Amino acid sequence: MHRSIATVSLSGTLRQKLEAVADAGFDGIELFEADFINFKGTAAELGRIAGDLGLSIDLYQPLRDFEGMPEAQFRRSLERAERKFDLMQAMGAPTMLCCSNTSPLSINDPSLAAAQLHELAERAARRNLRVGFEALAWGRHTWLYGQAWEIVKQANHPHLGLILDSFHTLSLKDDPAGIAAIPGDKIFFLQMADAPLLSMDVLQWARHHRSFPGQGDFDVVGFFEQVLRAGYTGPLSLEIFNDIFRETPNRRTAVDAMRSLLYLESETRQRLAKPAVAQQVTLFDPPPVPALSGLSFIEFAADEASAATLATLVKQLGFRRIGRHRSKAVTLYRQGEINLIVNAQPDSFARERFEAHGTSVCALGVRCGDPLAAVGRATAMRSQRHDSPVGPNELRVPAIVAPGGNLIHFVPEALGANGLYEADFILEDQGAGANDAGLQRIDHVALGLALDQLDTWVLFTRAVLGLEPGESLELADPFGLIRSRGVANAERSLRLVLNVSLSQRTRTARTLSVTGGGAVHHIALSCSDIFETAAKLRANGTRFVPISDNYYDDLATRIDVEPALLSRMRDAGVLFDRSPAGDYLHIYTESFEGGLFFEVAQRVGDYDAYGALNAPARMASQAQD
Amino acid sequence: MHRSIATVSLSGTLRQKLEAVADAGFDGIELFEADFINFKGTAAELGRIAGDLGLSIDLYQPLRDFEGMPEAQFRRSLERAERKFDLMQAMGAPTMLCCSNTSPLSINDPSLAAAQLHELAERAARRNLRVGFEALAWGRHTWLYGQAWEIVKQANHPHLGLILDSFHTLSLKDDPAGIAAIPGDKIFFLQMADAPLLSMDVLQWARHHRSFPGQGDFDVVGFFEQVLRAGYTGPLSLEIFNDIFRETPNRRTAVDAMRSLLYLESETRQRLAKPAVAQQVTLFDPPPVPALSGLSFIEFAADEASAATLATLVKQLGFRRIGRHRSKAVTLYRQGEINLIVNAQPDSFARERFEAHGTSVCALGVRCGDPLAAVGRATAMRSQRHDSPVGPNELRVPAIVAPGGNLIHFVPEALGANGLYEADFILEDQGAGANDAGLQRIDHVALGLALDQLDTWVLFTRAVLGLEPGESLELADPFGLIRSRGVANAERSLRLVLNVSLSQRTRTARTLSVTGGGAVHHIALSCSDIFETAAKLRANGTRFVPISDNYYDDLATRIDVEPALLSRMRDAGVLFDRSPAGDYLHIYTESFEGGLFFEVAQRVGDYDAYGALNAPARMASQAQD
Repeated sequence: MHRSIATVSLSGTLRQKLEAVADAGFDGIELFEADFINFKGTAAELGRIAGDLGLSIDLYQPLRDFEGMPEAQFRRSLERAERKFDLMQAMGAPTMLCCSNTSPLSINDPSLAAAQLHELAERAARRNLRVGFEALAWGRHTWLYGQAWEIVKQANHPHLGLILDSFHTLSLKDDPAGIAAIPGDKIFFLQMADAPLLSMDVLQWARHHRSFPGQGDFDVVGFFEQVLRAGYTGPLSLEIFNDIFRETPNRRTAVDAMRSLLYLESETRQRLAKPAVAQQVTLFDPPPVPALSGLSFIEFAADEASAATLATLVKQLGFRRIGRHRSKAVTLYRQGEINLIVNAQPDSFARERFEAHGTSVCALGVRCGDPLAAVGRATAMRSQRHDSPVGPNELRVPAIVAPGGNLIHFVPEALGANGLYEADFILEDQGAGANDAGLQRIDHVALGLALDQLDTWVLFTRAVLGLEPGESLELADPFGLIRSRGVANAERSLRLVLNVSLSQRTRTARTLSVTGGGAVHHIALSCSDIFETAAKLRANGTRFVPISDNYYDDLATRIDVEPALLSRMRDAGVLFDRSPAGDYLHIYTESFEGGLFFEVAQRVGDYDAYGALNAPARMASQAQD
Repeated sequence: MHRSIATVSLSGTLRQKLEAVADAGFDGIELFEADFINFKGTAAELGRIAGDLGLSIDLYQPLRDFEGMPEAQFRRSLERAERKFDLMQAMGAPTMLCCSNTSPLSINDPSLAAAQLHELAERAARRNLRVGFEALAWGRHTWLYGQAWEIVKQANHPHLGLILDSFHTLSLKDDPAGIAAIPGDKIFFLQMADAPLLSMDVLQWARHHRSFPGQGDFDVVGFFEQVLRAGYTGPLSLEIFNDIFRETPNRRTAVDAMRSLLYLESETRQRLAKPAVAQQVTLFDPPPVPALSGLSFIEFAADEASAATLATLVKQLGFRRIGRHRSKAVTLYRQGEINLIVNAQPDSFARERFEAHGTSVCALGVRCGDPLAAVGRATAMRSQRHDSPVGPNELRVPAIVAPGGNLIHFVPEALGANGLYEADFILEDQGAGANDAGLQRIDHVALGLALDQLDTWVLFTRAVLGLEPGESLELADPFGLIRSRGVANAERSLRLVLNVSLSQRTRTARTLSVTGGGAVHHIALSCSDIFETAAKLRANGTRFVPISDNYYDDLATRIDVEPALLSRMRDAGVLFDRSPAGDYLHIYTESFEGGLFFEVAQRVGDYDAYGALNAPARMASQAQD
């Protein structure tokens, strides 16, 4: 498909926007009027700049409150349209968007609207331009695509067609099924926007909180499917009004935008297969989402000094050193199925990360049936492949760069639990250590993100890794709100938690200022008996965040917890959450360098969340120290 | 009155909140449940800490979804209430808040609600505690205070009363007039909240966007008046859920909170005078709002080098040096009625500001009929008085500290246009300079504020200076949104513009990072012929931000501007705005050190705004350079 994006969707000057959009592989743009009005150059110059970058200018949107107006206003708007047609011809933009009238002056008469749009289309036709009519969700008399289509039909002019925007239809919960019956060649343009489900005025929602397909809660695939079933073959475009995107570096936004279209195309392609639709357009067809089965390792970036600190810490956590790397200053620690790698190799990727962010997680190793396919999927979805230097006889584990710069390695399942480590490390002793505390697996990894990274990560984990986001929660830190959202695969063997501090003053935000964001904030490790594990860890010297007695007094009034269990939790400082599916018992360690800490968790039954509602108890406790 | 505040209204740990609240002069707190649950100490210890700080714990709010429930849930909630009564007795809190039920399980039967609340009150009575019932705006069956009052009447228990919260009534546009008919002693507690008018779900509005009285758009004075007419004599409290306050330093929030109550009391006191109400409570009675009549001077903090740079700049702007200070390294420049002071005195307040913020405005001089009364008003409203060292025969101009640390001097009207300067300066030459460009007065001063300073400034300018806020606008900078709000006195002789960057990446935000916020961002000077003035300024060497030709092409299609005027504006780079009352022509200079710049403005007719919609043209132009 011809992929396009509205310039309002990105930050920067118009020229910077065009460069970012071209680099991300777009074919065209929709020109937002303010971008042109404030551009230091003529329409013809803009057309040349876009052309040089390989971009067409697909749409211009200068008209407001046009159709169904009293004669005087209509004549004035026609005159305005003529001046804008001048510009469109000079810049080479073929189509003008006219959105439905919101003015209190407008007259509720579809025939008048049709007649006035007919005249506009006739003027456009004289210059071989086209006009598309779009129903705004907050239009005064026309707010559904069905109403707009009736007016377009009545106007009956070959240079007038319909423009569809998924936001306007899905925000009103209107059924997109009727779109399939509209002749595809009368749909002149398609704008796709997703959005989180918010209970607010639709105009404010539309102007501030749209997002790229795959970042929100709308059934954008279902909408796009109907448009393709109609036989539409025009541009696939994004018009996203989002306060955060207005300030996000535009190169990242442009990549996210392209990824969202590729994801939308590939998901819709699968949907169209049943029942099969004759393909009138070519939809993106990437390798399938990889089957991932949990985290095999977590790698820390360190120098020699911090590697020694980490060694002490992880031993307190019940890990034992089981090997050193064949060719690098890298150490492997293990407990249960958990591998922690401490990388203090100079001149390495890890050292670069250490120098930029201090002691921090620099890579995750994900078990995967077909690592090459996983990398293929990722690069098709516009993630970057990363190849580390490899010594003799060592394994090359395919890796990609996650948003923010950390690596995700795909560890072949075929290697079994130990194959990778046998190949790359000189293993010293693989038995359980005397200090083993019963930690078994990596339950989840929580990332601390800057506000503008959340949508990027939701789309990355969905499109590249095939994870699905859960509920979005807001949690109170003593110094501001934290937004928290889990993402996981269907089997729940791979879980990440995306935490965003809305405040600059929380501990989460201060972690970000060290790491630059997109960094691991805490690591949750699972066990089968949290009381036994916590006791062993305490005996090893691990210190946990203390929890107020008041928490347990209140817990007893909220949830029917057996008194004996409550008493054990109170004594051990263990937090508790219950869902209809099961229970979650957990405890947080004190944080070390850079704010990173560990969580020990025990899932009982099919509990499927992260105890997020207990996070305020942790944050308040940390603040009181 | 007994002044109180809910702990949820401030950032920090519970102990930090109590200290900030006590220091700001509050008498008591409402304890938010999460603050207690996460507090490392017992209820009795909390009571002692509060007592030591001179604070009572006036209210505790642990119940949700209590009344009108099936028997099993009701019994369980009663048990929970008993445990919370234990805590209240231990901490010394006399009143429990029970807000109306939002649960889908609740039964729409006011008699059942009354009976269950009666039993709760009976349990409370056994311990000599009280229960207050409050209608939540989103309550399932009870959402108006009138409904809640009917239930309280029916329950008919001396330990059960009504709790009122202005947010719930005013957000639903319910009429508060009926409150006056409720017996004052059956109103157990009063929570006052203001809010901006937002088109969103009332629950989201309530949880994220409340503000202190005087910061929002509600008629909080009218609401409070009705409560006093009812004969209420209990606490006057603030329960403010606000995402920004959660991260604002709590000392500032506490001062804002106290100022808002003092303002509310003093405004309501005036309202109660007609028709007179027997005073059952003592309302705060500060000196009246000062009569201010415009800015007499703007003072810059500089060192010797930057004073020289400023000298060049202001001479290009048509100012001439007319004097030097009798005892300090301070220079006076003048044009029309505008005095610019450059303060390079070592060991001065200005030098402190210079060292912290670079070359920047450090003080404003406001003409005032009664400066001592103005300072009296300001200190009564919890602003700090500032006394500068004064040399022999120099005038002591009373001053206060504005939020963010700059000074506002009150210059006595009685001194005439020149009295202050004759006293403090050795005047050299007061004639118009050869470079005079026709600048006449200070039209307005625009401040760049951090997001958490906007509400502080709206309340400060309202309560201390008697200015009223205008419309709140959102403007698109290429790197994020700017929120802009003018505040002015009734005569429009004193105007400030409060600009907040919602993004960290705009030029406005970068100015903030230099100045720490609350700093002057640009200075608008008025003239009577902008074309003549601009031509002279250009001839003097002043450089203006260039405006795109596309702006003028578009202007002609939006507004009927006479072609000759349009052509002059295009040639001179002058921007244009038109309201029904008049026109605004303006032009921006390029910025100098620290991002500060000047605006030259001509008001035609009764135009009453600031040309804010043209700011994006400036911001886009600056970004393209």
